[in-house]
Amino acid sequence: MPSPRSKYDAVVVGCGVLGLSIANELTRKGLKVAVVGRELPEDVQSTGFASPWAGANWHSFAVNEAERRRDGYTHDQFARLAKEIPHLCERRPYFYYWSEEGNWQEPWYKDLVFGYRLLSPSEVPAPFKFGVTYESYTLNTPLYLQHLAKTLRDSSVPIIRHRLSSLDEAYSLPQIGHVNLVINATGLGARTLLGVEDPLVFPAKGQTVLVRAPDVKECYSHVDKLARPGQSSYIIPRPGPEAHVILGGCFLPNDWSTGPVPEVATMILQEAHKLCPKLDGKGGKGSWKDIEIVSHNVGLRPVREGGLRCEVEERWTGRDRKDLLPKGGKVIDGRKVAVVHAYGIGPAGYQSSLGVAKEVGGLVDGWLKKNGQGKRAKL
Amino acid sequence: MPSPRSKYDAVVVGCGVLGLSIANELTRKGLKVAVVGRELPEDVQSTGFASPWAGANWHSFAVNEAERRRDGYTHDQFARLAKEIPHLCERRPYFYYWSEEGNWQEPWYKDLVFGYRLLSPSEVPAPFKFGVTYESYTLNTPLYLQHLAKTLRDSSVPIIRHRLSSLDEAYSLPQIGHVNLVINATGLGARTLLGVEDPLVFPAKGQTVLVRAPDVKECYSHVDKLARPGQSSYIIPRPGPEAHVILGGCFLPNDWSTGPVPEVATMILQEAHKLCPKLDGKGGKGSWKDIEIVSHNVGLRPVREGGLRCEVEERWTGRDRKDLLPKGGKVIDGRKVAVVHAYGIGPAGYQSSLGVAKEVGGLVDGWLKKNGQGKRAKL
Repeated sequence: MPSPRSKYDAVVVGCGVLGLSIANELTRKGLKVAVVGRELPEDVQSTGFASPWAGANWHSFAVNEAERRRDGYTHDQFARLAKEIPHLCERRPYFYYWSEEGNWQEPWYKDLVFGYRLLSPSEVPAPFKFGVTYESYTLNTPLYLQHLAKTLRDSSVPIIRHRLSSLDEAYSLPQIGHVNLVINATGLGARTLLGVEDPLVFPAKGQTVLVRAPDVKECYSHVDKLARPGQSSYIIPRPGPEAHVILGGCFLPNDWSTGPVPEVATMILQEAHKLCPKLDGKGGKGSWKDIEIVSHNVGLRPVREGGLRCEVEERWTGRDRKDLLPKGGKVIDGRKVAVVHAYGIGPAGYQSSLGVAKEVGGLVDGWLKKNGQGKRAKL
Repeated sequence: MPSPRSKYDAVVVGCGVLGLSIANELTRKGLKVAVVGRELPEDVQSTGFASPWAGANWHSFAVNEAERRRDGYTHDQFARLAKEIPHLCERRPYFYYWSEEGNWQEPWYKDLVFGYRLLSPSEVPAPFKFGVTYESYTLNTPLYLQHLAKTLRDSSVPIIRHRLSSLDEAYSLPQIGHVNLVINATGLGARTLLGVEDPLVFPAKGQTVLVRAPDVKECYSHVDKLARPGQSSYIIPRPGPEAHVILGGCFLPNDWSTGPVPEVATMILQEAHKLCPKLDGKGGKGSWKDIEIVSHNVGLRPVREGGLRCEVEERWTGRDRKDLLPKGGKVIDGRKVAVVHAYGIGPAGYQSSLGVAKEVGGLVDGWLKKNGQGKRAKL
């Protein structure tokens, strides 16, 4: 059946940092897109998505060429953002410590970041023995989400609250009409969204303590093993006048619970104070109990075994899980359509976001050209 | 230290059906209250609270005198509501079926509801053998939440989005100022809210299918054991012009996951069609696959081992978990205050809500009188 003419070129599903970044990228390419999400970018207190809870700093975990490309591109874009909008993104010194030789591997990005060097023993605070420093970028994540959303709205891109039970609904939303292309940036939702149902997707619970610490302008972490499995220790100051700092953390696979656990918070504060004593607001002469707490936070990272799924899939509407499909919106009519999947980024959402968006843009270009729609979209 | 004069008499924490009902009850008593919540009543797509996802019908699970009193009172209030605002609440026929003698116990409310009687064998559809019928009330839960919120706002009660990490914060909210009384209607949040941290609280995942079925005006359920543990089968039509019907369900303790599982949805649809074949929109001549699905839903019921906690606790601010308390808002100053707990209602939120609100109102009266504040609150 021939596809009916669409008012929009594509619908992006998901209002996390990936969905919004992708929507901006496609808009810049001249496509007319709409964004839908169960959560909106303003819902910065919602545990329904991970993005508001992230630190976030650029500290790449890339383990392959595709990941390095995404993170590297995002790094360079953050450099530009830091110059243009410093309250969203700032270049800051980073310090990583460890206690046993061999706990640190030279990272792939040592020539990408600024001033990478090993610390001399005298520069490393007890109880740690080794350390490295460089400069990279930190973001104010709730503000950055608002910034991405504002950029979209300034370009007349609608951002609509609409909870989908199936991927198919996105091709015929009542507010948008028919489209032939959907970007699936549903994160953890990809596990149960009908027509996707990716069993490789699972949550990794992260807990943090948001504190106020005007003296702390640097990122810190140590890579030593902690007593509890899944626990780690990191400090990420957020740009902006509030002097907020995120203290982490943990990474607990398959834990869906969204409540902060007091014992974890205590561990986070104690370890953070070891890493950076001046967090106490008394120049390091106080204790972890002096740290000025703002809130206790939990976010569920959208992890995927094997990493991000970023690929085009051609499909027909109304065929997957036919018996369970909602009949809402326009009638599902067996149209041949495409989805570009972009979910499962785990803990690397912000630092890979603009690279992922660029990659999705390339996949969309390719699909449009292949389907003779290149001209329409002014590519 | 003497308490500073408060602009408000009490803060209600939690925007679920209990929090809003309690806030209305206290307002009617002449108290000046404010409501705060991580979710607002409008967030009917948020899995952060249970209330938008409920059926709900009045079908009491009460097992003791306190529960019977709450449910009975709510029943009579629903009767009034059904007369006043029929698109929110309607009296409907109920049918309960079962297959083995002894699967049904005569309920405590048989003289409270209308027309309670056992069905004759000819009235019971195969494969069931026994049945009972009566008339009771069903609610349109998302609309009812909006109604409760509107009633509050019409009385100038502020409903503020504010996520708390600790109970103490509620006594000194930046937007509200100092209060000496807090109502803790945080549901599942009571498990980790600092200063409460009730280990008896846990979620029970419920999954439903929201469908459109204009022919179905009655509630149905069967009480037979199903193949999967925790599965059940019920049908609750929602009042209103959309002809929405909730099909359930399951009750999965300690499952925090918020995604609908396709296999559970299939079971729900199949069992519901057995209970009420005309759900198929073809007068029962079709199959479960013909049911018009609107969406697949999940809600986490806020259960508490031992049932609802409904009691006054006198306490001092700033003493519990001192090291982990956020320092936001006004300074925490060791004031003697009170909390009325009202959380852990499990699957009985709506049908007990107005009874719980009345009970909380009584506890508040008692506390105010004891503390010589009765006159102030015009009780």
